[in-house]
Amino acid sequence: MSASIDVALVGYGYWGPNLARNLHQLATCRLAAVCDLDSARLAEVERFYPATRTTDYREILSDSTISAVVIATPVPTHYTLTSEALLAGKHVLVEKPLAMSSTEARGLIEVAAHQNRILMVGHTFEYNPAVRKIKELLTTGKIGELYYIYCTRVNLGRVQSQLNALWSIAPHDISILLHLLETLPVEVSARGATYLNSAVEDVVFVDLVFPDNVTAHVHASWLDPSKVRKMTIVGSQKMIIYDDVASEGKVKVYDKGVYRKGDEVYGEFQYKLHSGDIHIPRIDMTEPLRNECAHFVQCIQEGTRPLTDGENGLRVVQVLEAAQKSLRNRGVPVEVAS
Amino acid sequence: MSASIDVALVGYGYWGPNLARNLHQLATCRLAAVCDLDSARLAEVERFYPATRTTDYREILSDSTISAVVIATPVPTHYTLTSEALLAGKHVLVEKPLAMSSTEARGLIEVAAHQNRILMVGHTFEYNPAVRKIKELLTTGKIGELYYIYCTRVNLGRVQSQLNALWSIAPHDISILLHLLETLPVEVSARGATYLNSAVEDVVFVDLVFPDNVTAHVHASWLDPSKVRKMTIVGSQKMIIYDDVASEGKVKVYDKGVYRKGDEVYGEFQYKLHSGDIHIPRIDMTEPLRNECAHFVQCIQEGTRPLTDGENGLRVVQVLEAAQKSLRNRGVPVEVAS
Amino acid sequence: MSASIDVALVGYGYWGPNLARNLHQLATCRLAAVCDLDSARLAEVERFYPATRTTDYREILSDSTISAVVIATPVPTHYTLTSEALLAGKHVLVEKPLAMSSTEARGLIEVAAHQNRILMVGHTFEYNPAVRKIKELLTTGKIGELYYIYCTRVNLGRVQSQLNALWSIAPHDISILLHLLETLPVEVSARGATYLNSAVEDVVFVDLVFPDNVTAHVHASWLDPSKVRKMTIVGSQKMIIYDDVASEGKVKVYDKGVYRKGDEVYGEFQYKLHSGDIHIPRIDMTEPLRNECAHFVQCIQEGTRPLTDGENGLRVVQVLEAAQKSLRNRGVPVEVAS
Amino acid sequence: MSASIDVALVGYGYWGPNLARNLHQLATCRLAAVCDLDSARLAEVERFYPATRTTDYREILSDSTISAVVIATPVPTHYTLTSEALLAGKHVLVEKPLAMSSTEARGLIEVAAHQNRILMVGHTFEYNPAVRKIKELLTTGKIGELYYIYCTRVNLGRVQSQLNALWSIAPHDISILLHLLETLPVEVSARGATYLNSAVEDVVFVDLVFPDNVTAHVHASWLDPSKVRKMTIVGSQKMIIYDDVASEGKVKVYDKGVYRKGDEVYGEFQYKLHSGDIHIPRIDMTEPLRNECAHFVQCIQEGTRPLTDGENGLRVVQVLEAAQKSLRNRGVPVEVAS
Repeated sequence: MSASIDVALVGYGYWGPNLARNLHQLATCRLAAVCDLDSARLAEVERFYPATRTTDYREILSDSTISAVVIATPVPTHYTLTSEALLAGKHVLVEKPLAMSSTEARGLIEVAAHQNRILMVGHTFEYNPAVRKIKELLTTGKIGELYYIYCTRVNLGRVQSQLNALWSIAPHDISILLHLLETLPVEVSARGATYLNSAVEDVVFVDLVFPDNVTAHVHASWLDPSKVRKMTIVGSQKMIIYDDVASEGKVKVYDKGVYRKGDEVYGEFQYKLHSGDIHIPRIDMTEPLRNECAHFVQCIQEGTRPLTDGENGLRVVQVLEAAQKSLRNRGVPVEVAS
Repeated sequence: MSASIDVALVGYGYWGPNLARNLHQLATCRLAAVCDLDSARLAEVERFYPATRTTDYREILSDSTISAVVIATPVPTHYTLTSEALLAGKHVLVEKPLAMSSTEARGLIEVAAHQNRILMVGHTFEYNPAVRKIKELLTTGKIGELYYIYCTRVNLGRVQSQLNALWSIAPHDISILLHLLETLPVEVSARGATYLNSAVEDVVFVDLVFPDNVTAHVHASWLDPSKVRKMTIVGSQKMIIYDDVASEGKVKVYDKGVYRKGDEVYGEFQYKLHSGDIHIPRIDMTEPLRNECAHFVQCIQEGTRPLTDGENGLRVVQVLEAAQKSLRNRGVPVEVAS
Repeated sequence: MSASIDVALVGYGYWGPNLARNLHQLATCRLAAVCDLDSARLAEVERFYPATRTTDYREILSDSTISAVVIATPVPTHYTLTSEALLAGKHVLVEKPLAMSSTEARGLIEVAAHQNRILMVGHTFEYNPAVRKIKELLTTGKIGELYYIYCTRVNLGRVQSQLNALWSIAPHDISILLHLLETLPVEVSARGATYLNSAVEDVVFVDLVFPDNVTAHVHASWLDPSKVRKMTIVGSQKMIIYDDVASEGKVKVYDKGVYRKGDEVYGEFQYKLHSGDIHIPRIDMTEPLRNECAHFVQCIQEGTRPLTDGENGLRVVQVLEAAQKSLRNRGVPVEVAS
Repeated sequence: MSASIDVALVGYGYWGPNLARNLHQLATCRLAAVCDLDSARLAEVERFYPATRTTDYREILSDSTISAVVIATPVPTHYTLTSEALLAGKHVLVEKPLAMSSTEARGLIEVAAHQNRILMVGHTFEYNPAVRKIKELLTTGKIGELYYIYCTRVNLGRVQSQLNALWSIAPHDISILLHLLETLPVEVSARGATYLNSAVEDVVFVDLVFPDNVTAHVHASWLDPSKVRKMTIVGSQKMIIYDDVASEGKVKVYDKGVYRKGDEVYGEFQYKLHSGDIHIPRIDMTEPLRNECAHFVQCIQEGTRPLTDGENGLRVVQVLEAAQKSLRNRGVPVEVAS
């Protein structure tokens, strides 16, 4: 077994405490330091963890015992903080989305390659056992021809004043979609609405067209009475509902489908429905973030490429960019450059 | 009390049996005749009802004892059958949507006016006690400023070979939206996808922009593992979920909202969330179709205008037309002519 | 195919209309007559069905064209009405419970045997496709060793002023239990409470001990905020939840269980749990009462013994009698005579 | 504000880690030491908390800096460990049930009184905000006359090899019932069944009769496919469902009830049902165990009596004793000595 490595966490705001807890509990690394600009946040760190605390990022960068940095700061700072860490020779796990533009994302990939350091993006859902189970079901072709996927990710809060719902919520769904479909969309449309702040969409609807007529739809909002994290996958033979907040049956596989019977020439079709059993596979209960953190450490120790590497992060940013462009044009479709 | 009137039902296919049952059970009218082109369907009528049966529509039109006709035939036939009935001096209740175009719809309104007969469209949800309760909540201003509404109406089947999901499923939601908001949308976008038949969208997403920045979103599909009929209404003070297939709590009123606190000039905002009690008002259990049929008969007897009159039906068709145009243009927004 | 037979329905109160509808719609019989003491109820019959109507039971009995009688009157009248019908040479389907005592029940069995007529009891749940599926799962041994079953059947209303919750609600569960287990219980205990009427238990809890240490528990009440009709079956290998009011997944089969590992002599055990997939078999959607009515007619036509024959009805009454005795003795266990 | 006090945790098995986390996070005390016989468990403590660790209970007792002990060891050890701690001058919070018999419980109360130390029992649900809300609803009389309460607390696991389901699961429900009703039951019956181990009931049903014809029913089991923690409270005017595992709506208040109308003399009653709105009050999200630990520390600091003091713990044990006696006699009712 490899020696445990020392990791620093940068940003102890909304998501940081979850990273701290997991990094602390992992046997393969040590939460050596936490950096945050707010010393009140650091005081909370002190109560829970024996890590060094600092408000000065340079202290982290110059500490040669720290081999990896985990960045959970506001998205606009990702590019600068990540490139500085890479340049200081650290491996980096940065929260999603990787950056504010594909130009930035490409820049980070280059720096990481040049520095020969690992760059990983925190697309947690790709480490989620439920998503893995769905990926397995799609890969083995059990659902027949894939038709379409739609996702709803809504909640009351966390309202953001800089990032809209597209950039702050939809990256989860886009990451899952790209992971499941293993290809970029051809074209993206997006529409949204602003209520609390005229510059920031609280609600966004995104349509994605993938090759082979597969389509997807994403609804992201922080103005909703319920917490919904749901994805429906419609195939010709089977259909899947993935409900991430269900207490029983996060993934349900429906033996349901429709096929067309008849004469194509004369246009006389009949549609036959079948509706059979429902199967709920057992899903491993490991915390996805635990898997993600463990994977980061393992990639460092073994010198392997992370599942959610820089290119993975770039692809999500490319989709976000195209969607943002469509959003500004009231839904006019935008091609995704590949 | 007015004398009972004799009503004929035209079309005993998918929806006709529900109309027959309600017309038969209403004390204010008599199901006098049923017309269908398929004599096997008429044989079923014979088993259940003492009504006259015919495959010849002209027999219905020429029967002077019949004062009203209820039309539940395929939508492309609505225009011809409805105008013939009006011209024959019958009052008409026709299933939704009223017609295949606004030109047709306007034509029917004119004929009805000229013939001084009642023209009513079967937008059942406007007779649904749950929708009435929501209308009441919106009217009394209890939800604060209305932000947005989104609707999901999906199921496995009934797959249609001529009408797409926009024209066959979404009219329900559009009718409810226009009823609740009491205005036409300014602009409509729609995107869809075809899987079973390249000429007919199985799945459609519609975005509607109403005056005062109120927006709405409709998802209609007949390719889905679950039967969902759900509408979420987001206001600044309260939020409502209307789940038409819930066994308990079809309408839930959430005392939830977000408001912005801070200095507009310096752009330093804070968002305050409140999340209080949930209230589930008792909803009257009357069958909406029963209310609708009774309303039709009452309007005839009292000479009053139906809630869902020809103009009401026309407005829904106008929205469908605009959405259809956008659908053909991959989501480019289309203005709704008023 | 046998000729259609003429059936008379006796009692058009709470449950009678459901029987009327099914008898009317069955192709193998004709709802020839309806008898009720209340002429207002008969007026409703007239609106829906072309059957003869009478308030005089003797008219039914003396009508030689009527070969079978379906009795849905208050339970205390079952014995008299059923024996009169059998003596008049009619086949009889009588609602559950068969009679108010095992003595009465045995009397009816004897009369039916002597008259060579079919006596069937309306234990509808034995004709329920969900119960049939569960029976199949138990018979094939898939759940391992059967441990215990518990049932909840509660609702608000129908409050009865003569029969307590044991006699009016619990017969459903007892019938299902005897059907699934294919044996009488050895011993029964029951406790209850009276709130609305000091002579009639609104709430009853029944414990049943079957051979081989299989136990069952029934909770019946008409004072409850929710409509619950639920049965949980616990086996050593699998467990089943049957929720009759669930819209999706009435029967859920859980691959869950506990086994004991270790040394019996030294009492050092470990308990190993397994918790795997959940399977929801498709359940046929036929109305149970339709199946029941069709079965009655078929038994008459083919001269076969009904699934829920007089002996079946007697066994349920024997359990009710024992439970009633325990109820009067505050839960002291009572043996079930076999 | 009082000075923070040093607390030792004894027992770091199943429940201990939850206590450790809460004691660690409370600002009013310090988790100074943890004692467990298993040094592997202590190694886990070391990873998470800066507390002293020991396998020797006497070290805790003789440490004068420790003023309070929290005991989360197997129930049969409660009496000895608690009395030793009290005799050593420590305040004690001991997990439920307080002891294995009312004699033991009374002994502990006496020692605590003599030593002038606080004795508190960990009946967590009395610190649960949902239970507090229900208590408030009952106290203000909003539900009318209280009829009956039934509770289901089942799960797969944790199978116990010494304590049956009555002693290990039902104390929660009994504690809640006594808290809500503010009186001991008059009489208790219990029935159970053993499957995994012939000496230990896996499943128990308890009936409790309280003064004024209020009754309660408890179902406790560790052999179940689902995790259920549910309590239904039936009143004459309103009914409450408390579902502790519901994600939305843990407490639902139903405006439902039945009243009797009519002439008592002639026994001609009619039962009128009303079924109105449902109200879901917002429930504070504080962790009950956090409230409990904070209350313990506060009682020490302020010298006040805990809500769940020794007498409270004794009453629960008295009910358990009576139920155990009935259980051994197959459900024969047993009076509760007061």
